[in-house]
Amino acid sequence: MIHDFIYDIPVRVYFGRDQLQHLGEELKKHGTRVLMTYGGGSIKRIGLYDRIVEQVKAAGLELFELSGIEPNPRIDSVRLGARMCKENKIDVLLAVGGGSTIDATKFMAAGACSDIDPWDFLDTTKRAPIKQALPIVTVLTLSATGSEMDCGGVISNPATNDKLGRMSSKLLPKASFLDPANTFSVSPYQTACGAADMMSHIIEVYFNMDQDLYMLDLFMEGLMKTIVRYAPVAMREPENYEARANLMWASSWAINGFIDGGKRQAWSCHPMEHELSAYYDITHGLGLAILTPRWMRYCLDETTVQKYVQFGTGVFGIDPTLEPMEIANRAIDSLATFLYDTLGLKSTLPAVGIDDSRFAVMAKKAVGGGTLPAFKPLTATDVEAIFRMCME
Amino acid sequence: MIHDFIYDIPVRVYFGRDQLQHLGEELKKHGTRVLMTYGGGSIKRIGLYDRIVEQVKAAGLELFELSGIEPNPRIDSVRLGARMCKENKIDVLLAVGGGSTIDATKFMAAGACSDIDPWDFLDTTKRAPIKQALPIVTVLTLSATGSEMDCGGVISNPATNDKLGRMSSKLLPKASFLDPANTFSVSPYQTACGAADMMSHIIEVYFNMDQDLYMLDLFMEGLMKTIVRYAPVAMREPENYEARANLMWASSWAINGFIDGGKRQAWSCHPMEHELSAYYDITHGLGLAILTPRWMRYCLDETTVQKYVQFGTGVFGIDPTLEPMEIANRAIDSLATFLYDTLGLKSTLPAVGIDDSRFAVMAKKAVGGGTLPAFKPLTATDVEAIFRMCME
Repeated sequence: MIHDFIYDIPVRVYFGRDQLQHLGEELKKHGTRVLMTYGGGSIKRIGLYDRIVEQVKAAGLELFELSGIEPNPRIDSVRLGARMCKENKIDVLLAVGGGSTIDATKFMAAGACSDIDPWDFLDTTKRAPIKQALPIVTVLTLSATGSEMDCGGVISNPATNDKLGRMSSKLLPKASFLDPANTFSVSPYQTACGAADMMSHIIEVYFNMDQDLYMLDLFMEGLMKTIVRYAPVAMREPENYEARANLMWASSWAINGFIDGGKRQAWSCHPMEHELSAYYDITHGLGLAILTPRWMRYCLDETTVQKYVQFGTGVFGIDPTLEPMEIANRAIDSLATFLYDTLGLKSTLPAVGIDDSRFAVMAKKAVGGGTLPAFKPLTATDVEAIFRMCME
Repeated sequence: MIHDFIYDIPVRVYFGRDQLQHLGEELKKHGTRVLMTYGGGSIKRIGLYDRIVEQVKAAGLELFELSGIEPNPRIDSVRLGARMCKENKIDVLLAVGGGSTIDATKFMAAGACSDIDPWDFLDTTKRAPIKQALPIVTVLTLSATGSEMDCGGVISNPATNDKLGRMSSKLLPKASFLDPANTFSVSPYQTACGAADMMSHIIEVYFNMDQDLYMLDLFMEGLMKTIVRYAPVAMREPENYEARANLMWASSWAINGFIDGGKRQAWSCHPMEHELSAYYDITHGLGLAILTPRWMRYCLDETTVQKYVQFGTGVFGIDPTLEPMEIANRAIDSLATFLYDTLGLKSTLPAVGIDDSRFAVMAKKAVGGGTLPAFKPLTATDVEAIFRMCME
């Protein structure tokens, strides 16, 4: 059965090289006091910081800054940002960076409009309603999480080893500036991790036992083929605009909600990976790359094989006349080859410094103490088995 | 070169069987006085009229009606609608129907906010600015033109034999209700014409000498495969929800702007077809079906062949190891077979009652008196030659 759904993605996207000239007019729609958030110094190194400050000043806006937002962004940064918004009567937030900066900024925007501790928006026992948030504009510098065009974010709390996500339409950016040239300086390794993250976003939706809209399955296959084709190009030729442009636009469409088409979903690898990066602070895309092929192998059986056949023939061009199980196994092999050989990502948990000492507790948290009602329903025992498959 | 573009499609789409329950709340966002526009009696036959009236009344809104909007909608209907909006102080327009009803309603919405004759918005010598328009909500009953999610419309003026289009962001619907079941009663013939129209919208963008975003080319191929797969199913089994749902959502995405990705465009078959239907009032999709394979044949040469290869292998699965010209010709044959055999559409102009007596004047109008800067630039002589290819 094809479920009903509401499609509503009112993000204005300025895509291309010469779009920053519109930044001032876009920010002005939302007010005059701007808090710009970013991570480390990379936006200064590539000259983006100066170009943004110039646009903001030329538009006559008042600029405040919060830097130092970390990868796997932490709740303390969110708390600080929310406080700065209140103290400085900020009208609009300008997130400049990748998914970490944008995710953190989303919860600052919500925290700025509320008196509660921002962690309460994420804490699974509280889930405080997000009634309002300041408007957010983003300038993207990394193609990966899709946060620039979606309404979710993930925040870490080192005090509790929690890494939790939350979605709300109030968190959707008003506008995002996507200039592929702003990703020219992304390292081959980070480009690879971003590609793995994007692949996972699509795979989590694609591998689903709900009936699909065929049109959307073909779109997902197209997105995956795009990533498989261009991620290696961008690693080899960092300033290849065509490759960076395809990856950037694909990153947004991999997770902005369009591909969902009403499918009931529970993701599998993301909740597992969030435990890994909550406990070990590894790069999200890398964790997903290690987990995904093992999870696919674990879930393959006679009831699920057809989806693997579609994936293998549609994305990797595997001969459709082979036996379904043969196609499925070749499809998993092809994905593993792409992730570990072509992208050069590490392929086991020990290789990234993770041993089996916390598998039990992480597995239990990944399934929320129950069963993940995913592609193949997963209990803590299943997740622990998948973690164990990642040991070699 | 990949051009810059702005992506901005803030239409809220309620997709599925049980979405009409949201109609009242959606209309209420925009006001209390509603003008419902529709064509003939088909919406009464399928019970949609009653269901809409019930929702509007339950929401406490005041309902006005304008029926009788014709296929290839005429400027007189637009004038009447604009006048009704003013006289009744209408807040929001509710278009119930296919592309004709929605297109006409768009220009009523603009006309209602202006003192000029609505034809001045379309007249190529005047092109009056569209500064404002009443909000529009649509309930779609035919998968074809994509008007439910785009900002354009085409209006006929029988007094001058003109059929002209215009786009403006002010004309974009606020929300559209897409229930595939509302297209169950669409005849096999109209289903075929709608499929031909959708195919043409994609082909006009796909066949372009500008550099493409590969990701969008794959999406376009996916949309075309979806139409090729499901149009015949919907013709054979009119109440096949899966087929109707895929066609309906594909119709919106074929022309909402996403696939353009900044490509400089001048369409080819649409301007030619608008002349045919302006002079002979034939169904738009049928005219496109007759023209498109001839236009493709006319434009095929060594400089353009690569796009045909991509089309033939990507949409019709033609063996990529064949010679490019062989693939290209097979691709055109496959499209012709789909349109004339599978969909059963008439394949020549004489078969729809059009002779060559007006080819010269129509050709000249199609290119606006100059040259269409399209996939292959077309002069009036070229267009006349293409019309002539449609004689047999």
